[in-house]
Amino acid sequence: MRVLILGGDGYLGWPTAMAFSKKIYDVMVVDNYLRRDLSRKHDVEPLWSVPNLLERVRIWQELAGQTIHARIGDCCEYPFLSAIFKEFQPEVVIHYAEQPSAPYSMLNHESARITLNNNLQSTLNIAWAIHEHVPDCHIVKLGTMGVYGTPNIDIEEGWIDIEHKGRKDRFLFPRQASSLYHTTKIQDTDMLWFYTRTWGLRVTDLQQGPVYGLETNETVLDERLGTIFNYDELFGTVINRFVVQAIAGHPLTVYGKGGQTRGYINIKDTIACVELAMLNPSAAGELNIYNQVTETFSVNQLAERVVKVGNERGHAAQIKSIENPRVEKEEHYYNPTYSGLKDLGLEPHYLTDEVLNRMFEVVEKYQHDIQQHKIFRGIKW
Amino acid sequence: MRVLILGGDGYLGWPTAMAFSKKIYDVMVVDNYLRRDLSRKHDVEPLWSVPNLLERVRIWQELAGQTIHARIGDCCEYPFLSAIFKEFQPEVVIHYAEQPSAPYSMLNHESARITLNNNLQSTLNIAWAIHEHVPDCHIVKLGTMGVYGTPNIDIEEGWIDIEHKGRKDRFLFPRQASSLYHTTKIQDTDMLWFYTRTWGLRVTDLQQGPVYGLETNETVLDERLGTIFNYDELFGTVINRFVVQAIAGHPLTVYGKGGQTRGYINIKDTIACVELAMLNPSAAGELNIYNQVTETFSVNQLAERVVKVGNERGHAAQIKSIENPRVEKEEHYYNPTYSGLKDLGLEPHYLTDEVLNRMFEVVEKYQHDIQQHKIFRGIKW
Repeated sequence: MRVLILGGDGYLGWPTAMAFSKKIYDVMVVDNYLRRDLSRKHDVEPLWSVPNLLERVRIWQELAGQTIHARIGDCCEYPFLSAIFKEFQPEVVIHYAEQPSAPYSMLNHESARITLNNNLQSTLNIAWAIHEHVPDCHIVKLGTMGVYGTPNIDIEEGWIDIEHKGRKDRFLFPRQASSLYHTTKIQDTDMLWFYTRTWGLRVTDLQQGPVYGLETNETVLDERLGTIFNYDELFGTVINRFVVQAIAGHPLTVYGKGGQTRGYINIKDTIACVELAMLNPSAAGELNIYNQVTETFSVNQLAERVVKVGNERGHAAQIKSIENPRVEKEEHYYNPTYSGLKDLGLEPHYLTDEVLNRMFEVVEKYQHDIQQHKIFRGIKW
Repeated sequence: MRVLILGGDGYLGWPTAMAFSKKIYDVMVVDNYLRRDLSRKHDVEPLWSVPNLLERVRIWQELAGQTIHARIGDCCEYPFLSAIFKEFQPEVVIHYAEQPSAPYSMLNHESARITLNNNLQSTLNIAWAIHEHVPDCHIVKLGTMGVYGTPNIDIEEGWIDIEHKGRKDRFLFPRQASSLYHTTKIQDTDMLWFYTRTWGLRVTDLQQGPVYGLETNETVLDERLGTIFNYDELFGTVINRFVVQAIAGHPLTVYGKGGQTRGYINIKDTIACVELAMLNPSAAGELNIYNQVTETFSVNQLAERVVKVGNERGHAAQIKSIENPRVEKEEHYYNPTYSGLKDLGLEPHYLTDEVLNRMFEVVEKYQHDIQQHKIFRGIKW
């Protein structure tokens, strides 16, 4: 199977590429280094540096004996992207090529503009390139659970049947997000759903919760194959950041009351979910949506779990509630459905103490590289 | 009241500017001539030519003795737009500055890209300029009834209360549009609603049906004050196009079965609705949505009405059903609510034979300027 991974240099993209290459899928990765450029521009580089994408591919070839094709360029440039679809003729495209940070999208007008344009233009271009060159190609798009916000009703997997004044219809589940980034993930779904109905595209939308973890079966093969690991407020995700904070002696930054509840997922499960989605393609004209999480926690629960493990390992970790820089509910109803991917065969890796201990173990090796000033700057909504 | 009209050169923008200037509002218009440029590029110029916007403003000054401020530039350029908000300090902004054609948005990749970028970037910039310079400024955004599509349930005015598994919440009414253009109007609402909740913006979204009509109280003052009148498939609206087709001896182009039902509105009522929205501003953090139509017709009903009046006036008008170039339902349930603007005081001008006769009368004056090749080209979805 020919698999095109857009955003193949990222936190999820590169581990996905290696995992799929190992399974003898024919993999091509594309990236424009946006995430790396923004990390450098905003002085929040990852905890360890990683080789460039072409170098990563060479190292992989050397160690695993498999070829991953790589192209450096911008998915927002249609001639570039269109030529790749024409040349590679992918059977499935994994769309990770969006600006993935909520705080970055709220930083200033320029960051909002970049987020909006990048996320929608890349998605538009994918729809068009498929329509023009490979109409049967299946799109697996990474979305986010954040599109749903925190509604007072149970969150279904993407769709809801509504009965209203005695009549019925089925609609996309109502979405109301809490950052511009998350809003672009509402917008890209609406756009793909339009082209899906109109052109008969095949689309799977994975509404993923915050991912945690540093290692996959492939990253551990060699230090140089590690994934990008941000621990800052812009590009770090919450569990990863809490582990770093605990080790660095920085209070764990709980925003407000800490009752904010979300669904979470281990990076190993992300890769498994994307593969399951890929192996169960949507029919032509069909948009399947899965909620890609394996368990839910409040921020307080996460902080307590991390502090406990941190303390056991000799770190003087503690929690500090700070004024919430975001506009969000700190106490709310939250009951998402997430059975679809398990029904397809997902066997979750849960957030056990063992998993947390292994995360601590890895980060502790880089303890002296942690820069305090990167951890928190209080980007306001 | 200081009123900033973005897209002030357009079919609705210029008549709105004159009507508001006459009422002694302090009006500034902004336009980048996108609609004119696209009309020229695609060989579908309006039935009569109109002076440029600065010239229109001078003529208005001369005839009405009122000043309309005008700026030529692109609302997608943030420094340009931001400076206007800072300088003019508008109390209300009327946002007409979007690419308004569904068929244009479906023409090719380039037209899709322009539509997506223009419509979302302009809206993003307005939200930011208000946040930075005039946080109390009320946004009145033109939307479209097309965002709702043709659901099997009654269409409410923007919001719906959903009861699901014993719990309740209120959401934006589910939307599912039938062109990329209409989809951008879903996307801009979602984006404005996010910034409204986050920054306390004041927003009114007017979900308007197709507009018809050539004259307002101000355009009739002088031929040079006329509005832009497109009769082509790209930028013409259906009733206007049918009148031109009837006069030009071109069969009225009904797509498929012609059962497609939509809500319609007279251009005079558009201006009245926008003023009513402006005079009843949303509170901070509030998004009010009105369905801006006054009556509903199927395409067959419209075609029959136009043919009848045309025949009475001696035109050999006839209807021709052609294969539907669009992906849409040709027979469907359609029951939209549209009482909000009437509750605010709207007194509708309905599509009477008298109104149609007056439209024929005006277009007949330009009968020999109608170019057959502009009428229909069958842009496919």
